Amino acid sequence: MNTVSELKQLPKDQKTPFEAVVVLRKSQIKKARNDSEFLMVELGDKSGIFHVVCFGNSTHYPLFLNAREGTIFRVQGTTDYYQNRFSPALSNIEKVHESEITRYLDHLVECAPIPIDELWKELQAFIGQIGNDALMETVSHAIGDLESSFKTFPGAISMHHAYRAGLMEHTVRMARACIALLPLYPEVDPDLALAGTLIHDLGKALEYTGDLATTKSALGHLHGHVVLGYRQVRRAALKASLPEALLDRLEHIILSHQGELEWGAATKAATPEAVFVSMVDNLDAKMGMVQYALRSTPANQDFSEFVPGLGAPLLVKSPPAS
Amino acid sequence: MNTVSELKQLPKDQKTPFEAVVVLRKSQIKKARNDSEFLMVELGDKSGIFHVVCFGNSTHYPLFLNAREGTIFRVQGTTDYYQNRFSPALSNIEKVHESEITRYLDHLVECAPIPIDELWKELQAFIGQIGNDALMETVSHAIGDLESSFKTFPGAISMHHAYRAGLMEHTVRMARACIALLPLYPEVDPDLALAGTLIHDLGKALEYTGDLATTKSALGHLHGHVVLGYRQVRRAALKASLPEALLDRLEHIILSHQGELEWGAATKAATPEAVFVSMVDNLDAKMGMVQYALRSTPANQDFSEFVPGLGAPLLVKSPPAS
Amino acid sequence: MNTVSELKQLPKDQKTPFEAVVVLRKSQIKKARNDSEFLMVELGDKSGIFHVVCFGNSTHYPLFLNAREGTIFRVQGTTDYYQNRFSPALSNIEKVHESEITRYLDHLVECAPIPIDELWKELQAFIGQIGNDALMETVSHAIGDLESSFKTFPGAISMHHAYRAGLMEHTVRMARACIALLPLYPEVDPDLALAGTLIHDLGKALEYTGDLATTKSALGHLHGHVVLGYRQVRRAALKASLPEALLDRLEHIILSHQGELEWGAATKAATPEAVFVSMVDNLDAKMGMVQYALRSTPANQDFSEFVPGLGAPLLVKSPPAS
Amino acid sequence: MNTVSELKQLPKDQKTPFEAVVVLRKSQIKKARNDSEFLMVELGDKSGIFHVVCFGNSTHYPLFLNAREGTIFRVQGTTDYYQNRFSPALSNIEKVHESEITRYLDHLVECAPIPIDELWKELQAFIGQIGNDALMETVSHAIGDLESSFKTFPGAISMHHAYRAGLMEHTVRMARACIALLPLYPEVDPDLALAGTLIHDLGKALEYTGDLATTKSALGHLHGHVVLGYRQVRRAALKASLPEALLDRLEHIILSHQGELEWGAATKAATPEAVFVSMVDNLDAKMGMVQYALRSTPANQDFSEFVPGLGAPLLVKSPPAS
Amino acid sequence: MNTVSELKQLPKDQKTPFEAVVVLRKSQIKKARNDSEFLMVELGDKSGIFHVVCFGNSTHYPLFLNAREGTIFRVQGTTDYYQNRFSPALSNIEKVHESEITRYLDHLVECAPIPIDELWKELQAFIGQIGNDALMETVSHAIGDLESSFKTFPGAISMHHAYRAGLMEHTVRMARACIALLPLYPEVDPDLALAGTLIHDLGKALEYTGDLATTKSALGHLHGHVVLGYRQVRRAALKASLPEALLDRLEHIILSHQGELEWGAATKAATPEAVFVSMVDNLDAKMGMVQYALRSTPANQDFSEFVPGLGAPLLVKSPPAS
Amino acid sequence: MNTVSELKQLPKDQKTPFEAVVVLRKSQIKKARNDSEFLMVELGDKSGIFHVVCFGNSTHYPLFLNAREGTIFRVQGTTDYYQNRFSPALSNIEKVHESEITRYLDHLVECAPIPIDELWKELQAFIGQIGNDALMETVSHAIGDLESSFKTFPGAISMHHAYRAGLMEHTVRMARACIALLPLYPEVDPDLALAGTLIHDLGKALEYTGDLATTKSALGHLHGHVVLGYRQVRRAALKASLPEALLDRLEHIILSHQGELEWGAATKAATPEAVFVSMVDNLDAKMGMVQYALRSTPANQDFSEFVPGLGAPLLVKSPPAS
Repeated sequence: MNTVSELKQLPKDQKTPFEAVVVLRKSQIKKARNDSEFLMVELGDKSGIFHVVCFGNSTHYPLFLNAREGTIFRVQGTTDYYQNRFSPALSNIEKVHESEITRYLDHLVECAPIPIDELWKELQAFIGQIGNDALMETVSHAIGDLESSFKTFPGAISMHHAYRAGLMEHTVRMARACIALLPLYPEVDPDLALAGTLIHDLGKALEYTGDLATTKSALGHLHGHVVLGYRQVRRAALKASLPEALLDRLEHIILSHQGELEWGAATKAATPEAVFVSMVDNLDAKMGMVQYALRSTPANQDFSEFVPGLGAPLLVKSPPAS
Repeated sequence: MNTVSELKQLPKDQKTPFEAVVVLRKSQIKKARNDSEFLMVELGDKSGIFHVVCFGNSTHYPLFLNAREGTIFRVQGTTDYYQNRFSPALSNIEKVHESEITRYLDHLVECAPIPIDELWKELQAFIGQIGNDALMETVSHAIGDLESSFKTFPGAISMHHAYRAGLMEHTVRMARACIALLPLYPEVDPDLALAGTLIHDLGKALEYTGDLATTKSALGHLHGHVVLGYRQVRRAALKASLPEALLDRLEHIILSHQGELEWGAATKAATPEAVFVSMVDNLDAKMGMVQYALRSTPANQDFSEFVPGLGAPLLVKSPPAS
Repeated sequence: MNTVSELKQLPKDQKTPFEAVVVLRKSQIKKARNDSEFLMVELGDKSGIFHVVCFGNSTHYPLFLNAREGTIFRVQGTTDYYQNRFSPALSNIEKVHESEITRYLDHLVECAPIPIDELWKELQAFIGQIGNDALMETVSHAIGDLESSFKTFPGAISMHHAYRAGLMEHTVRMARACIALLPLYPEVDPDLALAGTLIHDLGKALEYTGDLATTKSALGHLHGHVVLGYRQVRRAALKASLPEALLDRLEHIILSHQGELEWGAATKAATPEAVFVSMVDNLDAKMGMVQYALRSTPANQDFSEFVPGLGAPLLVKSPPAS
Repeated sequence: MNTVSELKQLPKDQKTPFEAVVVLRKSQIKKARNDSEFLMVELGDKSGIFHVVCFGNSTHYPLFLNAREGTIFRVQGTTDYYQNRFSPALSNIEKVHESEITRYLDHLVECAPIPIDELWKELQAFIGQIGNDALMETVSHAIGDLESSFKTFPGAISMHHAYRAGLMEHTVRMARACIALLPLYPEVDPDLALAGTLIHDLGKALEYTGDLATTKSALGHLHGHVVLGYRQVRRAALKASLPEALLDRLEHIILSHQGELEWGAATKAATPEAVFVSMVDNLDAKMGMVQYALRSTPANQDFSEFVPGLGAPLLVKSPPAS
Repeated sequence: MNTVSELKQLPKDQKTPFEAVVVLRKSQIKKARNDSEFLMVELGDKSGIFHVVCFGNSTHYPLFLNAREGTIFRVQGTTDYYQNRFSPALSNIEKVHESEITRYLDHLVECAPIPIDELWKELQAFIGQIGNDALMETVSHAIGDLESSFKTFPGAISMHHAYRAGLMEHTVRMARACIALLPLYPEVDPDLALAGTLIHDLGKALEYTGDLATTKSALGHLHGHVVLGYRQVRRAALKASLPEALLDRLEHIILSHQGELEWGAATKAATPEAVFVSMVDNLDAKMGMVQYALRSTPANQDFSEFVPGLGAPLLVKSPPAS
Repeated sequence: MNTVSELKQLPKDQKTPFEAVVVLRKSQIKKARNDSEFLMVELGDKSGIFHVVCFGNSTHYPLFLNAREGTIFRVQGTTDYYQNRFSPALSNIEKVHESEITRYLDHLVECAPIPIDELWKELQAFIGQIGNDALMETVSHAIGDLESSFKTFPGAISMHHAYRAGLMEHTVRMARACIALLPLYPEVDPDLALAGTLIHDLGKALEYTGDLATTKSALGHLHGHVVLGYRQVRRAALKASLPEALLDRLEHIILSHQGELEWGAATKAATPEAVFVSMVDNLDAKMGMVQYALRSTPANQDFSEFVPGLGAPLLVKSPPAS
């Protein structure tokens, strides 16, 4: 089995047979001049992508047409080039069975540096630390009902923690920081702050769609993750009989965590807990960019690429034995 | 009965007895140096305001302490000045009975130029024009459940339609414009657009508090009118069994009508109906500022005061017999 | 006759003879290393473009050198590729005769969805609706003197109504909205508002150059459409003996219609008519983007591409049978 | 004759007779509660201002009602206070005769530090330095037709050179800088740059009104000084038969000199001359703020007040014998 | 001894003898019309301020003229009013002896809620926790050389920790947060981060002047606290022989900690330590505003005044027994 | 010897032997999938660039690995294409000897239009014009210690004077303007202004690295040119025993010359000299863009490409014989 990157390094002028496992990243119906439709299919793994054009009379057409973005395929074919772009001819295509998917995940997409199971376990432990029962149940329901998305979705489409399980990694890291800082800021209600931390970005599990090939869902476009998270938590709070006065403040943390209206906040943070969560969010998002730049920059370079969220390239060389 | 403005024009150097009807606009508990508390009470009518300091041992103290902002009082006293500010001594104070309030409204606060009853009737007629039954019911419930606030609240605290019933006036005027424009933009679904117009600002009935002395409610601070309107409509839609797909779009109109994120929109308008409603909102808000400048500028002046929302003073002189 | 798009789909590895009708979109003199000059010629139709390099010793050189951008050519040649870009060899080139041009327009450039003649007729009718004679004559002269440009130029180079006759389409649509809304805003002088609507963007007929291949004229760069429109209307008003006081207000509509100084307005709108026209302009410009996204998105997609002027992709799927 | 400042220092508790010469700065018609109209008159000299309320039955009413802002009065009366504000009772009022005005100018308003006659002479000399005759005549006519306003108006209402004859002082200083710099930038056409410098702010002579009490004229509000200057120069160029190609570039200097669209420029500077004039304008405006801060800060202070246009207080202490 | 606030509450119409201890907050030389100079002296305590005009022939003149801002006086006199403002007549003035000052501090200025000595001890302990000796010495020298200012200056002139010893309080609180968070972010060098935290705002000890009446020093205006801190640390690092490579990174923390260039950062944070310190700074600054709003809002109010740095009033009511 | 541009015009389908002199512009270590490292080397001259991939087993590997950016090579090889990009096979590579470099400079990089020696001589003359000896020595040391970088570095990486010796050209041109303008602004201390002009951008000699292939140095990223210039001047001033009061003001010119905080200024200009230098800097930077657009636009075009720093394309056609 080859990576896409390896396939592209094979000699251009000869057609080499290969086998690869790839994820369907995007599939768009296009109309040719003669009004016949075709599919423009984007396939790829962690190392790169390629496109395949699939006309209606192809045997693969129905398979691709009905597959959702994120479906994993085992493909066989020969390398080829069209207009100098890698355009392999695929002879055989089959969906990888559900049961096999985890084997390939690492090969297909970039993942959080901490295993999903560990993150999930730590998250559950944090939920257990919420002292107020109704609050704890609210958080538990709200996350539990979206478990599979919450476990695998990225923290953002670009910017920070933008990889599989990044949403959960960011949430867990923020909860760690929250626990570490709470003794220093006694004016912050610890239960509300921890609960707010755990669900502040929950709406992303509804805003995004497809854990292997993430894009915005229709509701993501129309409502945005702030309002979707608000709605999800409201629903869970009803089940958990959370008193209205606590719910108002929990919701306020979600509505204000983006910090500034132009970054998508519905209101400015106006409770000690909301100010606190919004600042811890900011801290961990920026540190996530630092961590990512550190692990993705080649060892021999002093500076990373320019990091848009930092507004600078990062000095990745360690300071001298300090 | 005197207006506050008239009282301030009486001779400063003699104490004149008077009677006035005023609304309690603000009442703040303050602490004196010696730690005893007192009330700083702001009373006023449409023509002006004055402050009364009320210590704990005053007979009026409990009355003022327990009164909500917006309560109407008939007061008697004599004019007086303290540190050159009008500070009358009040001898008698009594709450005006509910049944009498309407008599004094015009005296106490600025009102929309169209009577509330006419606006309400026209609003009901617009609701009746919504062709889709579930949509119509949704709007009817959503507004009906907040009838008394919706009928009397201003369109904004400052900026546009900032007077009693301004919210309803702005809504009705937008509905008129909506009906006039819909034939020109057939790509806009008329039922959704009309429904969206009627409830786009509904959250203000929850964001504000007190129709005679409007301020932001606690929920107004924590959630904002956009999210409060969304929540109110969601609740009404459940009662009316509005299909999810229509509700998503109706909610999107509320969430996006402010136009820009930094003006408080939760998302950018992304349906034909949402773009349309947001533009009609903008048009009528600006024309509301024009109308207000026209009717509040003295007849002999060519230009109004500077209008912040327009970024200019308005030329109020009519063009020559064009 | 083939479209450029079709030519590009022919087999890359064989030279196929073809005939096409194309418009000269750009022609730039470049200097080779050895100081000899050559022309880089951009040709295209509605479906796509290609480039031809033409050296001084080519027989086509004088023809291309002297042709203005927007000239239409019938070309014959064979398909070919250079550095993997489509670079046909042209054997024969001839200018299409003036009398034939209209036959090819639809093939060559994107046009407004309403025929030019209908738009023009409707525009004339709107001019006729201006009650004040001097105002009507002013508008009539101002537009009449630029008839051919005004009829065919786009509404903008990018952003909204950016296609042949888009300027006139936008003007006519705004006039429709103006007529529909005027009864609702009696504080707006109807004659001034209608006249202002009709000429608000007139300067674009001077700011742009070339109706088939639109770019900015030198004066467009140096003066901008706002000032050029002001100048054109001033000249027409002198002919029509428009009283100064009306002219001042008509000019003010042009000078302020862009809304904000940073978008190119010379002043902020400060008359009821100017506020009104500027808001209707904003409404129709945004709805023009909606209309364009609706008709250019493939039927099978739910969302359009990202629309810069809306700040979002548009949901193009109709709402369920509402 | 007393200054207003001196009058305000007289004992508050006794009515002292006085005589003063003051300028009518503002006169607003107001409506009392009882619908009778009165005038709120603002009078002042360089040292301060005071207000006089003048009812319809006062003998002074017609005099004030018909006087234009900027009229100079000799007033007699006795000092008095109303609500602790200086409110003298005026017994006698008479307009100062035209022929006497210059005697009082210094007493009444702040003036440029260079005498008006010298500035005018130097300005004429600069006009004479324009080599191209038609350009020279254009500038001469354009300025000459507005001579009296151009000679006395301020450079701005606030910000820089905001005092009598500040407009001419700024223009002359810029011309000096222009002449000094032109040899260093040979890519700048010297005639165009000098002509452009001399008329870049000419529109302010139309945008403002009243040289002793400057406010914006109606046209100033509706058209702005950039467009008014453009119009004035266009008219003069026709008289002087300036070739269109030169006029386009001269006008471009006016249209672009504000630098950024949001500061009121109609276009961005796009010729060497326009870039040059806009930069020299910026330089002299800022240095004008420096000069003003230097001469208006008391000798014993190291720093001036905060200067808004500089975004800082200015260190006015000279550097040590450098 | 009375507070200023109490003095202002004494009967206005009778002259009451009093004694007070006040700090000289500002003393400006002004010039009267007749060119004689006088001092405008601002005196006050924590509860309020008043002004005294002091002419050259007054016996107090030399005392005030030569006193620095921040000097503490014991004054005796009688209450009086001039133009309705409290203007007491001072009969006796004497400087409070150095040895007595601490007795009055609490009476005179608002202080950090933690005693200065405790803050200083905790700070020294944090310095001791820096593992790298040269770094530790650098920080120790840099702070030690400015001990008295660093101990007493506010964290900012307005915005956050804006009271006596606020600079040290903010520094200590940040160090606590730093220590709590470092285990969670192992990519951050702990010695550099702690050192950077302790000296990030050190320049304020040079930017401000006067611990009892803080204003900007001349160098504060000309260089700003970021560069002044850089310079101070550079000097200390030379003494401590800190290796250049560590110094570069320590300086970078100071230069970048303000976060954004427009907030005064010289560069964007580009090391893990600098990103970390800048985020912790932001967190503690905002929490400082929360703490201040909580302790300065009267117990009976739900919301604080509008807090500019938060962009909202803060809900100060505790959440229900969560 | 061929230019890179000429090599790219040779027939694609045949391998042609060539010799060229090129500068090493960038050399990045990359990791292949199989974890073996390779160098991606960017070579070029003034006419263009190309890339060479160099694996560890290549004979050229150690040469490229150890060469600094900016090293000049004489290369021999044959033309070739990989994936349609010019990828020559290099057979022989040797470093050009130091002594030969100047011969090739013109061939390799774009240079200032004035010879370096003349600029340096003129610069020295300006230093000599500083009347105050300590100031003169400070400037002389500060520049002298960085002579080689200061002589050859560009004025900016992009934007203005972005070519070899552009930094010195901009400095000299500003000094000329400074000398020309000083007589007009006597409130500006001429010695300080001239000294400040000469060293305002000196930090760029430390912020950049590599005169033939300029990038930001590590210190450039961490400290920025403003602070680096400040530090360099501070050091020189100590040697020259410049009095502190003069040094404070000289440093302030460096710290504030960028004009706005968001453009990198550490403080706003707050002395007459700093305001003056910052304005002259702005003027010459913009005129540098004008000069560059004029000399790099082909003679037959009226307008240059869009110039980002001007926000417009420049009209490069001379005005008619004015």
